[in-house]
Amino acid sequence: MMKKIVVIGGGTGNFVVLRGLKRYDLSLSAVVSMADDGGSTGILRDELGVLPPGDVRQCLVALSSSSLMRDLMNYRFDHGGLGGHSFGNLFLSSLEKLTGSFEKAIQEIGKILSIKGEVIPVTTHQVRLKMVLNNQTVLDGEREIYLSTLIDQGYRALFLEPHPQANHQAIMAIMEADWIVMAPGGWYTSMIPNFLVEGISQALKETRARVIHVVNLMNRRGQTTGFKVSDYHRDLVRIIGKDVFDYLLVNHQVPPKSLIEQYAEEGDLVINDMEEKRVVIAPLLGPIARREKDPLMKRNLIRHHSERVAREIVRIMHLPR
Amino acid sequence: MMKKIVVIGGGTGNFVVLRGLKRYDLSLSAVVSMADDGGSTGILRDELGVLPPGDVRQCLVALSSSSLMRDLMNYRFDHGGLGGHSFGNLFLSSLEKLTGSFEKAIQEIGKILSIKGEVIPVTTHQVRLKMVLNNQTVLDGEREIYLSTLIDQGYRALFLEPHPQANHQAIMAIMEADWIVMAPGGWYTSMIPNFLVEGISQALKETRARVIHVVNLMNRRGQTTGFKVSDYHRDLVRIIGKDVFDYLLVNHQVPPKSLIEQYAEEGDLVINDMEEKRVVIAPLLGPIARREKDPLMKRNLIRHHSERVAREIVRIMHLPR
Repeated sequence: MMKKIVVIGGGTGNFVVLRGLKRYDLSLSAVVSMADDGGSTGILRDELGVLPPGDVRQCLVALSSSSLMRDLMNYRFDHGGLGGHSFGNLFLSSLEKLTGSFEKAIQEIGKILSIKGEVIPVTTHQVRLKMVLNNQTVLDGEREIYLSTLIDQGYRALFLEPHPQANHQAIMAIMEADWIVMAPGGWYTSMIPNFLVEGISQALKETRARVIHVVNLMNRRGQTTGFKVSDYHRDLVRIIGKDVFDYLLVNHQVPPKSLIEQYAEEGDLVINDMEEKRVVIAPLLGPIARREKDPLMKRNLIRHHSERVAREIVRIMHLPR
Repeated sequence: MMKKIVVIGGGTGNFVVLRGLKRYDLSLSAVVSMADDGGSTGILRDELGVLPPGDVRQCLVALSSSSLMRDLMNYRFDHGGLGGHSFGNLFLSSLEKLTGSFEKAIQEIGKILSIKGEVIPVTTHQVRLKMVLNNQTVLDGEREIYLSTLIDQGYRALFLEPHPQANHQAIMAIMEADWIVMAPGGWYTSMIPNFLVEGISQALKETRARVIHVVNLMNRRGQTTGFKVSDYHRDLVRIIGKDVFDYLLVNHQVPPKSLIEQYAEEGDLVINDMEEKRVVIAPLLGPIARREKDPLMKRNLIRHHSERVAREIVRIMHLPR
């Protein structure tokens, strides 16, 4: 029997973990945050009233066996009315409009891409991510939250509006999993939103699956400034309502100084302050990525190494219980 | 051995013929005009510099075995920057941009659509259709010609700029065919442009294939006003440079008077004035189509009946020589 692995996160973090794990003989499910409302995804949500395709697209690409289709899904138009849209987003959104079902659209495109595994939106309700800061400012939408540098001044509330029920498929996947991997990613915008969906935390508390948290490499300035591993851990335990974590996978590799300096305006390195046995440290730094030119797709320079992360996860899965 | 049939025309006419012939055990190739520059196709040509996807899309849809994919290819966005684009056009154009080859794009999408047969652009050069009227006015582009009502005052020249070589695949298909079917369709905008491509007329003169011309049902006002079957025939013979036609398939069914009246501003019924044995007359009128709401996709109300046309073509193929 193949081990059942559920990876939970947003587009970019899930992509990194899935792409690595795809090489192993595992049954993979990606549970994907549905809070994105920026860029191409935001335009499609506004204009077509569809569910956000961007994060799902990245998971489909990560699991695809066709390199041409992978490239096509990520192909981005750069002119005129189509400018900024990625083909994959249009593919998902047209199929959703046509069939009336986002899940059906994912399924059909999954077939065309010959994906290994399945991609499950955490909820199939239309939701908007909102945050109330300590100064009572309301940040309206994932993009606004993503761009804020005031969050580390404290916030009162982070919530999805309207409060959504979880996708039944997501609950099932979590309940039936052998292992659950929390992917790295935008903390308030890609990771936490998964647990704001009604039913997800409950499932995590009830499942017999063991849980690994792949802790972020870098803090985001003005958001998680100065966060250490224990801060990330505390946040998740608080929102789930239980310490469900069997392992924390933490990078211990220090990026070149020049890169840290370049990165300084975006954030600082996450320091490990937890000395527990369940904290697994390993060199997880990916090859240095060039910043993509597309301003809509601004990405971090410092990323996880897919293969290394996957190797460590698989190694952890084989540790004696 | 399956009989090899090559259908030559534009998007709409090829669609009607291919959809009908698909039900028979035949090896089908569609040779498609590449002169379109209106609507979604025109925008994509302008903004992305791609070859015109619209007519090819219709042929792919006609030959597809997947009803969901057929619907998706024809799915049309109706809002914002995407407004007016059909998904299939975006699919073809993105793949062309990605792979650098329109033919590769057609091939890949053909696989995804499980098409029965092949779709061959008549040329893979970027061309623009132009017409010089008797009064020396130059009509620039397929759309401008399509919209003109001055053509029946006479024209001096109809040409593609720059003068293109034929796609080698199109020549091969014509040379190896058992039967060639000239589809109905916009006379100066979808049919004639195929023979303005260098090499096509020559191949038609040389091939051992037998040739059927499915003559238009209706004349287009201001373009082919008052054309009879012999006028269409004469035009093709003149441009090909030889009477290559073994059969002319002509409708003899008169549409309801109310429909003809409704249609009057678009054109008049084509009358048969040829009494030769090779003129096959049959009732070929399709079900009455509702005019589509999309102004970019203005279609004729009076169309050929796919199944009837195909049945007659197959019957002709089995006539004693």
